[in-house]
Amino acid sequence: MRAEIVSIGTEIMLGEIIDTNAAFLAGKLPELGIDLLYVSQVGDNPARLHEVLARAWQRSELTLCTGGLGPTEDDVTREAVAAVLREPMSVDPAQEAHLRAWFAGRGRPMVERNLKQATLIPSARALPNPRGTAPGWWVERDGRVIVLMPGPPAEMTHMWDAEVDPELARRATSVLVSRTLKTNGLGEGNVDERLSPLLAGTNPSIGVYARRDGVHVRIAAKAPTREEAWRLIAPVEQQARALLAPAIWGEDDDTLPAGVGRLLRDRGLTLALMESATGGAIADAITSVPGASDYFIGSLVTYATQAKIDLGVPADTVYAHGVISPQTAEAMARAARERLGADIGISVTGIAGTTDVEGQPPGTMHLALADATSVRTHSYSYYQGRDAAKRRAVTEALSLLRTYLVGGD
Amino acid sequence: MRAEIVSIGTEIMLGEIIDTNAAFLAGKLPELGIDLLYVSQVGDNPARLHEVLARAWQRSELTLCTGGLGPTEDDVTREAVAAVLREPMSVDPAQEAHLRAWFAGRGRPMVERNLKQATLIPSARALPNPRGTAPGWWVERDGRVIVLMPGPPAEMTHMWDAEVDPELARRATSVLVSRTLKTNGLGEGNVDERLSPLLAGTNPSIGVYARRDGVHVRIAAKAPTREEAWRLIAPVEQQARALLAPAIWGEDDDTLPAGVGRLLRDRGLTLALMESATGGAIADAITSVPGASDYFIGSLVTYATQAKIDLGVPADTVYAHGVISPQTAEAMARAARERLGADIGISVTGIAGTTDVEGQPPGTMHLALADATSVRTHSYSYYQGRDAAKRRAVTEALSLLRTYLVGGD
Repeated sequence: MRAEIVSIGTEIMLGEIIDTNAAFLAGKLPELGIDLLYVSQVGDNPARLHEVLARAWQRSELTLCTGGLGPTEDDVTREAVAAVLREPMSVDPAQEAHLRAWFAGRGRPMVERNLKQATLIPSARALPNPRGTAPGWWVERDGRVIVLMPGPPAEMTHMWDAEVDPELARRATSVLVSRTLKTNGLGEGNVDERLSPLLAGTNPSIGVYARRDGVHVRIAAKAPTREEAWRLIAPVEQQARALLAPAIWGEDDDTLPAGVGRLLRDRGLTLALMESATGGAIADAITSVPGASDYFIGSLVTYATQAKIDLGVPADTVYAHGVISPQTAEAMARAARERLGADIGISVTGIAGTTDVEGQPPGTMHLALADATSVRTHSYSYYQGRDAAKRRAVTEALSLLRTYLVGGD
Repeated sequence: MRAEIVSIGTEIMLGEIIDTNAAFLAGKLPELGIDLLYVSQVGDNPARLHEVLARAWQRSELTLCTGGLGPTEDDVTREAVAAVLREPMSVDPAQEAHLRAWFAGRGRPMVERNLKQATLIPSARALPNPRGTAPGWWVERDGRVIVLMPGPPAEMTHMWDAEVDPELARRATSVLVSRTLKTNGLGEGNVDERLSPLLAGTNPSIGVYARRDGVHVRIAAKAPTREEAWRLIAPVEQQARALLAPAIWGEDDDTLPAGVGRLLRDRGLTLALMESATGGAIADAITSVPGASDYFIGSLVTYATQAKIDLGVPADTVYAHGVISPQTAEAMARAARERLGADIGISVTGIAGTTDVEGQPPGTMHLALADATSVRTHSYSYYQGRDAAKRRAVTEALSLLRTYLVGGD
């Protein structure tokens, strides 16, 4: 099936908002076996919208539109579709009743202008929008489909998941399903080599991708139904897991903080940090995971050198080796676990700014991990700007922790 | 001038990358007095690319393209433009010499495939790309312009700033320039009311927008040149500043952490934090600003209750009033400034998770600010998910600090 996406809204044309709807939908279509050939953005302009939709109706079997379903005069997407299909618009009694109930339930008056949100054309049926006042339209005629969805992403994604995706899945003659395994601590080439017995297959196919949080392995299968596609994936996934464990820390939408969080909880261990260059970013990442309080005690963000000393780093160490040193990182990791009473202490000291410090270049980072009996350090240098330096150090710290927890070096 | 944007790349069509280039360019065109009428995305497919570019060449005076300028067979943007204009491509000696020097300078061999990046057509001149191997094209014929820029945003934005924007500015008959004043602590209605003497004007026009970090006031002027537009803005900006000071914390691209950072540095004051629910996010925001070490000592991220007590919050306070209370927030702010030896201590305790704690709903936050002689608190409740709750608390904490620093309540 050949599809196109049309995103409608003058705010997009002014650069005031980024059209994330098109990317969301584009990412969903391969799973449904649908080829996306064109994406267009156009303002809330009747003539240009008519031009774009008429072309879409003519060249694409499926057109997914977002935006322009509001109650104001500016919102003309329904009118444009009605004009392209030369069908009359009329208020649908069921939609009108629903709309009036929506306003009544919120104790707000409904102005007559809102009535246009209750209109339909003969070839359209309404798609419920529990998150707003604008129902969508499923328009079908002559073997072609146009779907109208609201522009606000929360409304659009909900309507996609609840209405549009299931309907398209029912009609799909083939679907694409994928499982992503996320690894850490192995290079891209190493992962490739380990998976070589599996790489010859075409269905499922295997892709290996280097990402900020490690190497990802994507196993994708095409089949008439999702169930059959999953049956194709299962044995290959099992083999890939056997070949890559214990480097796998998560799958699909998993994040590294969630992955190490699970390991800490499973092992009944607690964590404390002392952060300098990352300025609280590791703690922020760890506490992005619900339930982090089960294993995370806290972080001593010691941006000033005196703060490090006040919180337990021996002044001698700092003066002998410098603030930006593996030795200070070691002392920080020990101080974190002792001061906060945790099983594991992790630390980062380094340079997020653009100038050399203590003879070391921007992006130099020294990390350490201490438990009751040992301490390990990790140093590297990477600089692509302040924010990137902090983000990278967060990933490196979580990786160091993960490697420790699964018993690696 | 009527313009359109064409973003080219199969990755966009697969939803693997979001097309931020189109939004960047869309945001720049109003300043140049250029109306953007269409945006399209299309894959690296010769036939469809030809179709899209032929239509653009016919209907738009200016077409801005990004992507498809790489050295591989997949990259066919140059070829498509040559076909639409029916002009022959040939290797340009100057571009070839430049390309060979680029590879030689990096000690890397240049494969012959790269030569296509040195091609031109008679109507095209090359646009330098100091950040990569693909030069852009400025194509001009019959009063129409097509600009080809590389897809990687760092290369594209640099080429836009250095080459494309100046050339378009030279040709512009009118430009739009704007100054945004960012305020905090005043409601949208209040800002509107204060600015009422200025709102009647149309050039410059004034827009008032509620944003996450406060209310923004945008003063925009249209004129034949940028200089003239700035001359229109200056007196209105001066009046707006007089009407809104001291609520203004920054302008244009300023961020709230940078704004409070400047105030702290100007006043010679230092800051320490004790963060619970925000989990280090306030410290992360503050240390996103270069030079934050001038005023930021550190943050005690005390996620566990025992960590709060270990670091100076009286256990009596926690047990009498609860962890999630204004009293505990006060004690945390005092402990932060005392433990870390700062002039000002700020604290947050609250609920970022989805469940009630101590009888208070998700999103309840208690903040406090302590100096040597006084302490103030601020409590509120707002919940739109874990991440939003943390981000909101960061903004509230920085606002509390800003209000204190400018002498407000």
